[in-house]
Amino acid sequence: MENVKIIEIKKSVFENNDRAADELRGELKNRGVFLLNLMSSPGSGKTTTLIQTINRLKDKIRIAVMEADIDSDVDAIKIKEATGVESIQLHTGGMCHLDAEMTKQGLNNVSMEQADLVILENVGNLVCPAEFDTGAVKNAMILSVPEGHDKPLKYPLMFSICDVVVINKIDVLPYFDFDMEKCKEYIHMRNPKATVIPICAKTGEGVDVFAEWLLNEVSEWKR
Amino acid sequence: MENVKIIEIKKSVFENNDRAADELRGELKNRGVFLLNLMSSPGSGKTTTLIQTINRLKDKIRIAVMEADIDSDVDAIKIKEATGVESIQLHTGGMCHLDAEMTKQGLNNVSMEQADLVILENVGNLVCPAEFDTGAVKNAMILSVPEGHDKPLKYPLMFSICDVVVINKIDVLPYFDFDMEKCKEYIHMRNPKATVIPICAKTGEGVDVFAEWLLNEVSEWKR
Repeated sequence: MENVKIIEIKKSVFENNDRAADELRGELKNRGVFLLNLMSSPGSGKTTTLIQTINRLKDKIRIAVMEADIDSDVDAIKIKEATGVESIQLHTGGMCHLDAEMTKQGLNNVSMEQADLVILENVGNLVCPAEFDTGAVKNAMILSVPEGHDKPLKYPLMFSICDVVVINKIDVLPYFDFDMEKCKEYIHMRNPKATVIPICAKTGEGVDVFAEWLLNEVSEWKR
Repeated sequence: MENVKIIEIKKSVFENNDRAADELRGELKNRGVFLLNLMSSPGSGKTTTLIQTINRLKDKIRIAVMEADIDSDVDAIKIKEATGVESIQLHTGGMCHLDAEMTKQGLNNVSMEQADLVILENVGNLVCPAEFDTGAVKNAMILSVPEGHDKPLKYPLMFSICDVVVINKIDVLPYFDFDMEKCKEYIHMRNPKATVIPICAKTGEGVDVFAEWLLNEVSEWKR
């Protein structure tokens, strides 16, 4: 089994997170690195989606991954084994989100000069991560079909801050009462500009669309 | 459509949550009221499980429900319409959990003298609610099959504080890589005493077992 770097994240001492986030984005812009903040509930398929996406992009751009997790290191190992890209684990020690200062602690352990795109897999949680700007260039979230199409009504902030909403596990649509059109309508109630991309990370269906969205965003940022 | 009482929960000013929780439990014991704290990820089926469970118990004991939600009131209305029991909505205003003091704000709006069992449906989140004792007599959580059997590895605290883990959506087991035995093993790694109950809230399969567990706990508490 592969070994991955594990970083124990310390609680932020920085008072003004919004300023820290803007500073971090400025630094990323200067270095030509795009940071994507990927959020979702536990078990919605973040890691599988990442593996599929990275395997479609890794010959076109240089990618690194930071896996935030309360305790384990299974995700970082999985990503490294399945894609070969640099992958480190951030242990949050029970903290339910990452802010910009904590994200920076992680980035200090990534080979930034060798990356066009760094993906932060945030803690599985639809509430707290939405409240803290990580300094990412774009926010993405995954909603999976079994969670239900009403989630934008119940977790409004998360949906309002995300630039793209990936709807995963569309292969099980026949077995759940999930109304895709209603879901899109609710998402756009929260954020009219959000891009919605239905996928099945297990089979790869739709992942090309997400990969292309991401590639465009990275090119745009590095221009 | 039914109307339900909506309570805007204020942030706690109480410093020592563990003491507040113990005091609340003492008060509940004196009044003969059992409080169940029900937690899970978003979309794992808390509300449907509650409706099925309440409909099996409401002729045997008196039940009231407090639905915590960041914003909406759909769950409290759904419970009231489907079961007829008293159901109020607690708005947490973006807060990701309830502590004992916040739970008490909710209980002050429930007809406690007419209830044997009060169920608190906590905010959908596997991280923060686990960190705050609500004053409940027992903690229950729902893990749904689509979330995956590895969740006890990733959210250790939640599994370690729960007396019962309900595994919901077993009707879709054929469509997911979910290993029930591994899941039970992981849960018992975190909490050897946890009761594990597989159910399908949609069809009602297994709900009798959970209802019986709950009924026994309530009788025990009121003795």
